[in-house]
Amino acid sequence: SAGSGPTLGRNCSSLSLNLHSTSWLVDCAEGTQIQLQRASNVTPGRISKVFITHLHVDHCFGILPFMNTAMSSASNPGKPSRLDNVVRLEFYGPSGLRQMIRTNLKLTQMSLLGKYAAHELLFDNEPTFTNEETELHSNEVPGQDIRIGPDGLWHNIEDSEGFTIDAGPIVHRVTSLGYVFNEKPTFHIGLAYLRMLDDLNPLILPRGVSRARALLSTLADNENPQPVTLQDGSIIYPPPRELAGRKLVILGDTSDPSAMIPISQDADVLVHESTNAWIPASLSKNQSTLMTPEEVQAKAISRGHATPGMAGQFAATIRAKALYLNHFGVK
Amino acid sequence: SAGSGPTLGRNCSSLSLNLHSTSWLVDCAEGTQIQLQRASNVTPGRISKVFITHLHVDHCFGILPFMNTAMSSASNPGKPSRLDNVVRLEFYGPSGLRQMIRTNLKLTQMSLLGKYAAHELLFDNEPTFTNEETELHSNEVPGQDIRIGPDGLWHNIEDSEGFTIDAGPIVHRVTSLGYVFNEKPTFHIGLAYLRMLDDLNPLILPRGVSRARALLSTLADNENPQPVTLQDGSIIYPPPRELAGRKLVILGDTSDPSAMIPISQDADVLVHESTNAWIPASLSKNQSTLMTPEEVQAKAISRGHATPGMAGQFAATIRAKALYLNHFGVK
Repeated sequence: SAGSGPTLGRNCSSLSLNLHSTSWLVDCAEGTQIQLQRASNVTPGRISKVFITHLHVDHCFGILPFMNTAMSSASNPGKPSRLDNVVRLEFYGPSGLRQMIRTNLKLTQMSLLGKYAAHELLFDNEPTFTNEETELHSNEVPGQDIRIGPDGLWHNIEDSEGFTIDAGPIVHRVTSLGYVFNEKPTFHIGLAYLRMLDDLNPLILPRGVSRARALLSTLADNENPQPVTLQDGSIIYPPPRELAGRKLVILGDTSDPSAMIPISQDADVLVHESTNAWIPASLSKNQSTLMTPEEVQAKAISRGHATPGMAGQFAATIRAKALYLNHFGVK
Repeated sequence: SAGSGPTLGRNCSSLSLNLHSTSWLVDCAEGTQIQLQRASNVTPGRISKVFITHLHVDHCFGILPFMNTAMSSASNPGKPSRLDNVVRLEFYGPSGLRQMIRTNLKLTQMSLLGKYAAHELLFDNEPTFTNEETELHSNEVPGQDIRIGPDGLWHNIEDSEGFTIDAGPIVHRVTSLGYVFNEKPTFHIGLAYLRMLDDLNPLILPRGVSRARALLSTLADNENPQPVTLQDGSIIYPPPRELAGRKLVILGDTSDPSAMIPISQDADVLVHESTNAWIPASLSKNQSTLMTPEEVQAKAISRGHATPGMAGQFAATIRAKALYLNHFGVK
């Protein structure tokens, strides 16, 4: 239904945002396509965008196998298809992503149906990776080179499916990104409003409109809601209440995401890594490696990672309404 | 024990050969490192060689995640280690393998401990991929460029762990290889021979030898068995019986492996793909897509694949003693 919106299903360093008519992934680790087979609420062919936080192998090495499934040409190899020129997948990520996808597609000689684009979020000094026609993969269309803004953030890198997306750099051993998914305000169409529509005399509806509820596409258009004038001159106005859009902040691996603060305020959901956690002596299997909470935090930071406490602190700083921890270390 | 030798444990397009002191993999699909966690008889750190049949993503895209585990520096990041200059992993495969590993290691900025080498089996006309010092990854040592012989085969590409290894080109949509693992003849040391040793007077053993069975390292050396002269002038000869070495033939995806015939004769084990199989109408879920056995075979061949019947035919041609089918299609 219209009010359901995105949900989060946890993967091994791959999250899926299930939207009305499509799904987006954040990160795509090895095994993602296998996880997708298990998931009941998302299928590879339905996914249209993949946002990569950083290029460590445990966050991006499922991309090629996933493309092999999501853009499969198996059912119709080599034959013309209406999908040949359709951009089926768009990737967003740090410098290196475009080269990684293109090089591996060429080396694995993967046979794909349709097109993809690899957009890179670049710092001021980072070189672009070529989009020359002769260098593109045969299934590739040129991706955007999205330069960081003067405030050190990438604003509005994408606007679709009722979301605008911002991104920011966060501290890790390698370039790592956080993404902010800003849902646009949506209409909450109450029962009283629907009854009002249902009670309209069908004879005064605009020509060509047989059911009053069909007017909702104009009255409650998310981008540009408009009043509707009926045949008797009376005017129906858009529904009175808007539902504020939700804000999802999803961070890559990080020991310090503070650069994200300006675009993360009042997040409805914060997804933050929590690689290292202090384990009390009574629960620890290995008494010889016991560390104090301070030592655990110092170790996490030295590897570019965080503890649950650090995640909680950032959640408090941005006044997040909910905090999801992921990326638990194996030790 | 000395007679146990290699066993085969099936993975998703990754087979492991478990030798006395190490393991080898043939192919390394996505998910291999996860499969290795489940396997009780092989651990990532114990694997020393990986043989890649072809660069399709379902056969090679587990390499990087596997390296991340097998050459992990996690326990000692950035610190000097006795493993720093040890070649921990050697890869063998077609042209493109070296570039794939090196490019992805650089892009993912993986932190590894020790060295690896990527050897390429090249046809006459194939260019080598650079081994220039300045182009190598920091964990890489130059790999060999192994040119195909005048008979269209790669002979003796490796000689270790009691095996010599040959390879040959097989027909697929992309360059695909088959590997032959030839076990060298090994001594079968019978109970009578051991008793003879045990009955020797310890006083006449060569100086420095306290137990007669220690002479076995000379008497039954696989490469160069030698008689031993005792202090009383008597001579002990190597054990009388040799056990013929076994031959394993492991093929990549193929519709026609006949180029392998000269090096595959009398294989003890043949591993052959079987992507497409004819399913009788009574067992078929989808009655609308029923095909004749001939149509199934034609479809398999058109995609560079084989049926169980084709595999059986090749097994008969080389007089294989056992045939293992793998790579079953998902349809």
